Amino acid sequence: MGDTVNPATATDILPSYLRGEWWTPAPGGDATVIRDASTGEEITRVSSEGLDLAGALEYARTAGQASLGKLTFHQRALLLKQFALALTERKDELYALSARTGATKADSWVDIDGGIGVLFAYSGKGRRELPNAQVYVDGPVESLSKDGSFLGRHVYTRLPGVAVQINAFNFPVWGPLEKFAPAFLAGVPSLIKPATPTGYVTEAMVRILVDSGLLPEGSLQLVSGSVPTLFEELRRGDVVGFTGSASTAASLRERTPSGVRFTAETDSINASVLGPDAVHGTPEFDAYVRQLVVEMTSKAGQKCTAIRRAVVPTAQADAVIDAVRARIEEKVVVGDPRDEGVTMGPLVSREQREEVLRQVRTLVDGGGRVVIGSTETTEPDGAFVAPVMLRFDDAHAEAVHTVEAFGPVSSLLTYDTVSEASDIVARGGGSLVTSVATHDAAFAAQIMAGVAAWNGRVLFLDRDDARSSTGHGSPMPGLVHGGPGRAGGGEELGGIRAVLHHMQRTAVQGSPEMLTAITGVWHAGSAAREDGVHPFRKPLAQLRIGDRIASASREVTLDDIETFAHFTGDTFYAHMDEEAAAANPFFPGRVAHGYLLVSWAAGLFVDPDPGPVLANYGLEDLRFVTPVSPGDSIRVELTAKQITPRETDEYGEVRWDAVIRNQDDATVATYDVLTLVAKE
Amino acid sequence: MGDTVNPATATDILPSYLRGEWWTPAPGGDATVIRDASTGEEITRVSSEGLDLAGALEYARTAGQASLGKLTFHQRALLLKQFALALTERKDELYALSARTGATKADSWVDIDGGIGVLFAYSGKGRRELPNAQVYVDGPVESLSKDGSFLGRHVYTRLPGVAVQINAFNFPVWGPLEKFAPAFLAGVPSLIKPATPTGYVTEAMVRILVDSGLLPEGSLQLVSGSVPTLFEELRRGDVVGFTGSASTAASLRERTPSGVRFTAETDSINASVLGPDAVHGTPEFDAYVRQLVVEMTSKAGQKCTAIRRAVVPTAQADAVIDAVRARIEEKVVVGDPRDEGVTMGPLVSREQREEVLRQVRTLVDGGGRVVIGSTETTEPDGAFVAPVMLRFDDAHAEAVHTVEAFGPVSSLLTYDTVSEASDIVARGGGSLVTSVATHDAAFAAQIMAGVAAWNGRVLFLDRDDARSSTGHGSPMPGLVHGGPGRAGGGEELGGIRAVLHHMQRTAVQGSPEMLTAITGVWHAGSAAREDGVHPFRKPLAQLRIGDRIASASREVTLDDIETFAHFTGDTFYAHMDEEAAAANPFFPGRVAHGYLLVSWAAGLFVDPDPGPVLANYGLEDLRFVTPVSPGDSIRVELTAKQITPRETDEYGEVRWDAVIRNQDDATVATYDVLTLVAKE
Repeated sequence: MGDTVNPATATDILPSYLRGEWWTPAPGGDATVIRDASTGEEITRVSSEGLDLAGALEYARTAGQASLGKLTFHQRALLLKQFALALTERKDELYALSARTGATKADSWVDIDGGIGVLFAYSGKGRRELPNAQVYVDGPVESLSKDGSFLGRHVYTRLPGVAVQINAFNFPVWGPLEKFAPAFLAGVPSLIKPATPTGYVTEAMVRILVDSGLLPEGSLQLVSGSVPTLFEELRRGDVVGFTGSASTAASLRERTPSGVRFTAETDSINASVLGPDAVHGTPEFDAYVRQLVVEMTSKAGQKCTAIRRAVVPTAQADAVIDAVRARIEEKVVVGDPRDEGVTMGPLVSREQREEVLRQVRTLVDGGGRVVIGSTETTEPDGAFVAPVMLRFDDAHAEAVHTVEAFGPVSSLLTYDTVSEASDIVARGGGSLVTSVATHDAAFAAQIMAGVAAWNGRVLFLDRDDARSSTGHGSPMPGLVHGGPGRAGGGEELGGIRAVLHHMQRTAVQGSPEMLTAITGVWHAGSAAREDGVHPFRKPLAQLRIGDRIASASREVTLDDIETFAHFTGDTFYAHMDEEAAAANPFFPGRVAHGYLLVSWAAGLFVDPDPGPVLANYGLEDLRFVTPVSPGDSIRVELTAKQITPRETDEYGEVRWDAVIRNQDDATVATYDVLTLVAKE
Repeated sequence: MGDTVNPATATDILPSYLRGEWWTPAPGGDATVIRDASTGEEITRVSSEGLDLAGALEYARTAGQASLGKLTFHQRALLLKQFALALTERKDELYALSARTGATKADSWVDIDGGIGVLFAYSGKGRRELPNAQVYVDGPVESLSKDGSFLGRHVYTRLPGVAVQINAFNFPVWGPLEKFAPAFLAGVPSLIKPATPTGYVTEAMVRILVDSGLLPEGSLQLVSGSVPTLFEELRRGDVVGFTGSASTAASLRERTPSGVRFTAETDSINASVLGPDAVHGTPEFDAYVRQLVVEMTSKAGQKCTAIRRAVVPTAQADAVIDAVRARIEEKVVVGDPRDEGVTMGPLVSREQREEVLRQVRTLVDGGGRVVIGSTETTEPDGAFVAPVMLRFDDAHAEAVHTVEAFGPVSSLLTYDTVSEASDIVARGGGSLVTSVATHDAAFAAQIMAGVAAWNGRVLFLDRDDARSSTGHGSPMPGLVHGGPGRAGGGEELGGIRAVLHHMQRTAVQGSPEMLTAITGVWHAGSAAREDGVHPFRKPLAQLRIGDRIASASREVTLDDIETFAHFTGDTFYAHMDEEAAAANPFFPGRVAHGYLLVSWAAGLFVDPDPGPVLANYGLEDLRFVTPVSPGDSIRVELTAKQITPRETDEYGEVRWDAVIRNQDDATVATYDVLTLVAKE
């Protein structure tokens, strides 16, 4: 992607980080020159000649797997936070380099602070949503036998290989980090392969992480330069995450060996639809135009999520073009991002500028008219292109749905009915994102039904969220990034979903005892321990899965029900009126309140004195199974089900399995009680 | 797969079911002759010459999508039950045909009753676990703005194409149905392509469904015969489910167009491990041997899940071989399954018999010794092969981990340490299933850590579940079927998971109002309706998402806390002892019981008289956020969040969003209340 190939000396080559050491090729080979996007000045050279790729991959599969295998999800999550802090501390270095790629301050914020934000987000989610363990349990117990002696469950365990992460040039910090964070959390070592034109920024980011001394051995390696033999070196159990062009993704997918997961996130022909209600003068019209100009100009339009197709009602087309033109004239200043007042930088390289202008000409040949900007370039050194909007009179023209000009370029298309609008969106063949500006919930639901299956993300913009919206072009750590078809068919981010993409889901069948041993979560039917010590008297250091308190029995009288009803105000007829209750299809007559039962159960299982149990912070999955009539008795069994000590607090979460039974041993209610318990 | 190719007449060709009609090729073309596996008698001929495949696929994408698109998940689920009943009614016809494929009664039970069971299972899960709607909401709300005006959520919507289902010969009823059921439930039309040797059984099954008159237009088509141009005709939005050999899967995967999902379930070199504790004389040893002989002989070993590698402690090898030999001698009678006393039928065809014997010889060449059975065949007409066990002295011999003899053939390997056992299992390169016979929970957890990522399913067999186990070889509807690597890397079944594999996950961003409109589930922050009618007085016919009761406020006194404590017995110190409570890190002093708060909240929101609300059957996701001190007041807002009318009952489920707030509007507790509400 650099413009020339020159012989290199040892010192000016961008290093790789392999097998725990920085490495550069021997001097004298060929290398690609990388230049400042605005000035054309040489920055560095890139070569991977002589690099031992097979050794690096094997190092990840052995040393990397071993070191990460010693850590729990929570421990890895905490390291992610420390990585984020280390990067925050030195982010000025990254900003300075980022400007050389053509990024403005705002662009760099998305890339650098955005990337750090992904680390923070995964650190938080890892500790909140994953157990402090190495196995993730998926879904409920499947009962496979009538007597409860044979159960099924699903667990996720990490893939046994290496996560190879091939990144695009546009986000040299965020791109690698959004792939690295979930892989690391899963316990799978990463090999990062940045794009050559901006790999020097990734190298600086990795250097900060290496310098921090926090990286577990083999958990992260960096390859600067090309790796033509990569796909031959992959093994079953490895996983590849690719970001880049759809055509490259297709060819790499074909080269992926059997048993290697391949996931792609490719630039797609994304759309933004202006709703029929969002006519000129409405807040939605204004929000639509603002967002469109942002997406055309931020990162100089070099975003796989940028809006390539503006889909507007026929009657609004001229108004949209006028408003976009006016806003560009008012807000957009193209230039060297280090210069005062500049709001849009150059493209990453002169080659990229030529490529974008070529694609604009292809769009013109395919039926587009340039209505804003031009295909001329003026600056000889910098890779500058001013924003371009094309208008297509034929919404079915093939070029507008297939040709991507990866720069500040959007095309305008018009529609008259909601099904036409959906059809236009779908013609992109699968997109990362479509946004819709509308305040009409019925239109929103209709167009969603038509476009959902063709999009990885759909954003609705209206007066209520125009100020708080994170924007059409911004993937969020908690939401899936990726889309079907042309967009690559992969999924990244989406919170814990991306962690699970680095793990294997396995169904486990066995006796309750075996499921308890394998999942680390107590399963009904496996042994419980009643050792004479109330489990509420045991701190985490002593408490074990299966520790149980089985309560005494207590009779429920009609008087109790009356008392509870009048105390709480809950005089629902099923508790108060024998005849009406008996007429209800679910009750034999007056029955005790469900809330009475769980309140009494707490009275039956609680140990009242101060001790390690600090609080009951919630309750889950409560189901009332058998009604309790006056004269029935209830008792409760409370069993420690899951123990989650926190890494950074003096306490942790304990989930208790609660079962209320009646005098006939029939199950009255089941639920989980959530408590905080001190470690010591 | 038939043995000869003969000119066909119009009448003896197995029909296809396409575009709502039965179709056979014009007379005179070539056709494959299909023979009875035991007698060699001709049964039918198969040809797809002249078949309009492109038309069939397009019919599914248009008529099939349209008819299924009119139904909700629950309506589709009910149809699955009716399909199951229609098949049950006429299953004798299928049993008679199944015997001709070489299947014993027991084999046919697995195929036919097993297939019907999948329909019942998906019918039940569809109604219990999916909403009565067309959109499935995945995961919690992601908060994307501080003020709550911009949220994120994930939804699944069906793929816009056709599900092409390519099946193996061994389960001509179960195989198609286990792919059809989740596709149908998702709302995606199916095109079933059975394997030629047993396609006549699938044809009979489809005929029963067609005759029932229950199939929505275009929802199911059947292609009898080969479809060489299939992959060229696929379009973005289609999905292919393939069951068959690993090599075919690999070549089909390469031919799959971009944007078409391809999932494969391939026969793999599955393992069964005898634990070190399961020595001769233990119940686990006996269970292991019983299971091994079942897996070698059921369906004459023609199962992708069969045990190909018996992995046993070195010291137990001879005992295992002796026990297996004895059990085969005692239990296994090979013959025509229609003959009295026969327990194991022939392979599906003579070609298949030759292929299996050839693979056994390859195993012998690769280091195996035949210790049970032989490579000789005796019957000239039938495709009979007696059970064969080989022993490999070198557990690293490549053949035993890569060569599959798809018949009654297993190889024995020995190990001495748990890591050796794990390594042997992993050498299969990815399996559908591994079973482990052990009563040692620690060994179970250890070997699981080593093999989980290489298996789609792991079964633990011991004295506790030996009688209730569904068996090594049996995929269950609620558990994932499929495995990594050599096993194809796909997932089928697993309950609703397989439905979702036919749908696109899309992140949705927008205001609460928009998320409510799109998901059909009320989101906090969107409009609520207080129209003067208590929502408990509204039957489902009148109740709307967003209907709300906002209660009056009620003060909590110390007296109330005391009363509740003594009534329930819950005298936990945080409620009773000011000093001890204040010493707790989470409480300001004595606080009200969480159970008091939710009990009072019910008293505040309930409408006591008989009405459409029939019962409160549970409660979910309760979190206590802010403690309530004596003198504080609480009030509750209860808002209709999700309404799920049942198709076959006069009531349905209503989920209510409950929020308890204090006098400062701080959130005290949040939870969902689950009720049953009458339709009228």
